[in-house]
Amino acid sequence: MKKIKDLRWHKGMTVEELVDNIGDLGFQSINLKQASDNIMNMLQIDAKIFLTFTSNMVTSGLRGFFAQLIEYEIPDVIVTTAGGLEEDIMKALGESFIKGSFNTDDIELHEKGMNRVGNIYIPNTSYEKLESEFMQILSGLYDKKSRWSVYEILKEVGLQLDDENSILYQAAKKNVPIFCPAITDGSLGYHFRIFQQDHKDFVIDTIKDFKKINDITSYDDKKGLIALGGGISKHYAILSTLLSGGMDYAIYMTTSSSSSGSMSGATTREAKSWGKINDDSYTAQVKGDVTITFPLVMINVLEKLSDAGHIEV
Amino acid sequence: MKKIKDLRWHKGMTVEELVDNIGDLGFQSINLKQASDNIMNMLQIDAKIFLTFTSNMVTSGLRGFFAQLIEYEIPDVIVTTAGGLEEDIMKALGESFIKGSFNTDDIELHEKGMNRVGNIYIPNTSYEKLESEFMQILSGLYDKKSRWSVYEILKEVGLQLDDENSILYQAAKKNVPIFCPAITDGSLGYHFRIFQQDHKDFVIDTIKDFKKINDITSYDDKKGLIALGGGISKHYAILSTLLSGGMDYAIYMTTSSSSSGSMSGATTREAKSWGKINDDSYTAQVKGDVTITFPLVMINVLEKLSDAGHIEV
Amino acid sequence: MKKIKDLRWHKGMTVEELVDNIGDLGFQSINLKQASDNIMNMLQIDAKIFLTFTSNMVTSGLRGFFAQLIEYEIPDVIVTTAGGLEEDIMKALGESFIKGSFNTDDIELHEKGMNRVGNIYIPNTSYEKLESEFMQILSGLYDKKSRWSVYEILKEVGLQLDDENSILYQAAKKNVPIFCPAITDGSLGYHFRIFQQDHKDFVIDTIKDFKKINDITSYDDKKGLIALGGGISKHYAILSTLLSGGMDYAIYMTTSSSSSGSMSGATTREAKSWGKINDDSYTAQVKGDVTITFPLVMINVLEKLSDAGHIEV
Amino acid sequence: MKKIKDLRWHKGMTVEELVDNIGDLGFQSINLKQASDNIMNMLQIDAKIFLTFTSNMVTSGLRGFFAQLIEYEIPDVIVTTAGGLEEDIMKALGESFIKGSFNTDDIELHEKGMNRVGNIYIPNTSYEKLESEFMQILSGLYDKKSRWSVYEILKEVGLQLDDENSILYQAAKKNVPIFCPAITDGSLGYHFRIFQQDHKDFVIDTIKDFKKINDITSYDDKKGLIALGGGISKHYAILSTLLSGGMDYAIYMTTSSSSSGSMSGATTREAKSWGKINDDSYTAQVKGDVTITFPLVMINVLEKLSDAGHIEV
Repeated sequence: MKKIKDLRWHKGMTVEELVDNIGDLGFQSINLKQASDNIMNMLQIDAKIFLTFTSNMVTSGLRGFFAQLIEYEIPDVIVTTAGGLEEDIMKALGESFIKGSFNTDDIELHEKGMNRVGNIYIPNTSYEKLESEFMQILSGLYDKKSRWSVYEILKEVGLQLDDENSILYQAAKKNVPIFCPAITDGSLGYHFRIFQQDHKDFVIDTIKDFKKINDITSYDDKKGLIALGGGISKHYAILSTLLSGGMDYAIYMTTSSSSSGSMSGATTREAKSWGKINDDSYTAQVKGDVTITFPLVMINVLEKLSDAGHIEV
Repeated sequence: MKKIKDLRWHKGMTVEELVDNIGDLGFQSINLKQASDNIMNMLQIDAKIFLTFTSNMVTSGLRGFFAQLIEYEIPDVIVTTAGGLEEDIMKALGESFIKGSFNTDDIELHEKGMNRVGNIYIPNTSYEKLESEFMQILSGLYDKKSRWSVYEILKEVGLQLDDENSILYQAAKKNVPIFCPAITDGSLGYHFRIFQQDHKDFVIDTIKDFKKINDITSYDDKKGLIALGGGISKHYAILSTLLSGGMDYAIYMTTSSSSSGSMSGATTREAKSWGKINDDSYTAQVKGDVTITFPLVMINVLEKLSDAGHIEV
Repeated sequence: MKKIKDLRWHKGMTVEELVDNIGDLGFQSINLKQASDNIMNMLQIDAKIFLTFTSNMVTSGLRGFFAQLIEYEIPDVIVTTAGGLEEDIMKALGESFIKGSFNTDDIELHEKGMNRVGNIYIPNTSYEKLESEFMQILSGLYDKKSRWSVYEILKEVGLQLDDENSILYQAAKKNVPIFCPAITDGSLGYHFRIFQQDHKDFVIDTIKDFKKINDITSYDDKKGLIALGGGISKHYAILSTLLSGGMDYAIYMTTSSSSSGSMSGATTREAKSWGKINDDSYTAQVKGDVTITFPLVMINVLEKLSDAGHIEV
Repeated sequence: MKKIKDLRWHKGMTVEELVDNIGDLGFQSINLKQASDNIMNMLQIDAKIFLTFTSNMVTSGLRGFFAQLIEYEIPDVIVTTAGGLEEDIMKALGESFIKGSFNTDDIELHEKGMNRVGNIYIPNTSYEKLESEFMQILSGLYDKKSRWSVYEILKEVGLQLDDENSILYQAAKKNVPIFCPAITDGSLGYHFRIFQQDHKDFVIDTIKDFKKINDITSYDDKKGLIALGGGISKHYAILSTLLSGGMDYAIYMTTSSSSSGSMSGATTREAKSWGKINDDSYTAQVKGDVTITFPLVMINVLEKLSDAGHIEV
């Protein structure tokens, strides 16, 4: 039986020390440390790691952190939604988002050409920059073939970017496939639509994507999931290992609760009834905003990895 | 200035009376009545109504209620996710889901072949029944052509069902398009994959879906959104009217909060910054489980519609 | 094994019918019906019923509904906080609260002399009316004795009011004790303080209150708890039966979740570890705003009670 | 206009660096940094600082951190609930709480004499140790006088403890008054009750407490509030400055949301309508579990304070 320990600060406390300490503090801090430990385990046994996140996290500065994790070869597979991917491109093209407020006059913002995501504003001009760039990329793709899966498109996009803080750039470089099960659900949808109007045989083959993500892992692989937020990103990832034995590790970090039966709030326990997560798997759930909890979890991992010589810094 | 009024029950109180009464009660009950009033307005000015919901709501008995609303021609467009659609088919094929518990032994459930969604269990056998049926449907579709948009597939499926409580059946009958921006994100994904293996040219054209939902409304239309839960269903619907002036009415009913910038918790106010919702729109947000709040909101509407002779009962 | 049933509306649906139907719907609606059934059981076996609620619920129109429940002799004990009690007095003195908005200019409200509780506004004038009345009541009390327990004071106050929608009035009439473990935590605190300044020996004896609530039930009594919201009201009530065997029934209705270990979100399961709730007790938890969920739960009970001739309407 | 910045980890990152960085990240991390900055400001202008927390936070290892903050003379006033205070005494008497799980068999725990608070277990034996100690303390108090305010009792208790991680010990040493508006709402209630049975004139004077907390600040003082969680602790503190001009700074850190009008979820904005917080005040709200967010906020402050020579480490 482990004891709850009183927290005491000392001068110069590192993130690693804090996370190690709050593992005996109580409530979500215990879960946070458990998440960190489980991810460390995943890496030690060389599990194939699925990292999923929602668009708003890419709107935030977690984007550069995700890119850094890919650079360090932590995740093997990424699943996310369209909005985040287009914002990653905008930022790679030099655009910046604005630090704003949850309490603001949204009609005034609209008139100023600012689009709000919580307390972050995205200028209309960033969307305009994306459009001209992306239409060119589509032309280039079409020159090669007319039928593309999403992960293939996203790799091509990544290869054309040049920004070490870009998820698409790092993933292309490290050959980490990015899946986006609903790629038209964003401004990219408009670009695809316009392009198809003039190129009738251009088509996105999402069935091929589904085949690809299912084929990445086999029964023999150890598999781990780090799901930030919920929605289709989370669901698509856990579904992808259903036929190869389910996840061996699962970390859920979200603000949703399980009371209304939604996927976003669904627990790791529930996933075991589906076989989406192994009966014997290691799991952890951390309730809270990932802009706070995820850096804590992962910096603890990164420090230990670098101490062990697994990543070079 | 309206006053808060004390609630008093009287014998035989109808749902309509209760909802009308709690409009002056306080907190979310005020919002609930406002949602009901706004939906009544949408119908009176003949707005095009987008109804979106997440899969878990179809797992629940709201499924029959959604079908009834389609039968009464309330929504003009449906947006939802793959899981709910496959469950609607299972139920139309005679399958039943089981009333269970949030606190249960999920490993034991797994051994019994039961898959848990909150406090509802779906038997494995329901998935098996779906599979044999759906593969036959795909063969029939392929005989006609090899490239299908999702809304076309879903209409074909609906035409082959025979269950007045089925969403797909009622939507096909009433010619209400159903959109599902990530159709492979469910067990249907496996069926599509297997089918494509033997029919290489079979492809789903999600760009055509995006074009279709955008073309449904024009600047001249009045547009209304009823979004139950969040995720891509909600996002895809509000995105679809962006180029035609945004929604004139928006009702958000969810358990999510706006604090972490997610789409699921995004407010109607935030959507105005994007132009997704008109600056002058009528909006309402109701926080709570839709298995409780949505029947209250809509029964109040249905009673008033039938009193006014707009629906026949 | 019970099946999930599709909901279908029919013309003139009563609240009782709806609640009975949604018991097979899913998620929180199942819990809501279970709460209603358990309360019906409590009444049938003549359990001593503790009803607890937070101040904001009295700010809302639930106040009249609570009074009606006391009139029908449903609760045997009430536990609440100071704010709600003073607002009950204000309303009994003829004051009205205003239906407002969650999104408002609070500085402007302050200038107008309006105090906001969510989307309800309380005018400053209501506090002024309370003050003059309450100081007179205190003088009357002091003439009788100088040391008072809270439940005694509240009974005296109730006897001096004349409003059938008043909690204090109905409780005094029906001899239902009202406990308020932190009576100074509100504007009443200021009145007590001023009064004590001129009457040094005036003192509130909260230990006597604690003795009283503990003495209300014995091991032989069946005991039931209906806790709306959390905080000290909930805690004080479940604590009070700890020495007499714990609650036999417990209904928790709240918006809080259990993830951070707070009393407000603590589950009925957790309470069993303390013996605050019997190991064999009947429990239900309903997550959601009580301005919506509590009327549904109780109207279902009231209809069945009146059908069975237990209450006269 | 400030820009959102991509987060990148570097080896050996301190908590201070992380918090400074995530101030430009997005969503709750922005709020967290704002909370930290505001607390720094409070200290720089020498505001009187009210720190409030709920019992569960003392059950956790935050207890030692609170004690450390008192040692460094950060808060001038503490407001909390009975449960936490008795647990602080137990721990000071050498008792330890156990690290457990949210998902456990609570009936089994009960049989083992373990009481669960989220994922922390408190042994029955800790309560027994408290009882014998506290009854002795009460005897000692009674020898001095029969009528005590709560803050006086708590100071006497603190003087008799000897544990640098104890809140009561440090507060007594640093002459920081601790208020507990519902002192009988815990196992202390039983001890008071038993003691009063044999000492009829023993009485707790909570009106004196209310006077005391109101008299601590005047119009001329700058006043700051750090409210962790909600409930009466939060309410009692903000109420106490209402007559002296309201708080100049207010930091709310909680998991509750404002949708149901409860005090726990009430916003700093709402408090301005009451004058509980100045119209011109500096405020910040951080949504999340305080076992994670509060150490981040305060360690950032402590590092900067020690750099500036304001605290000695």
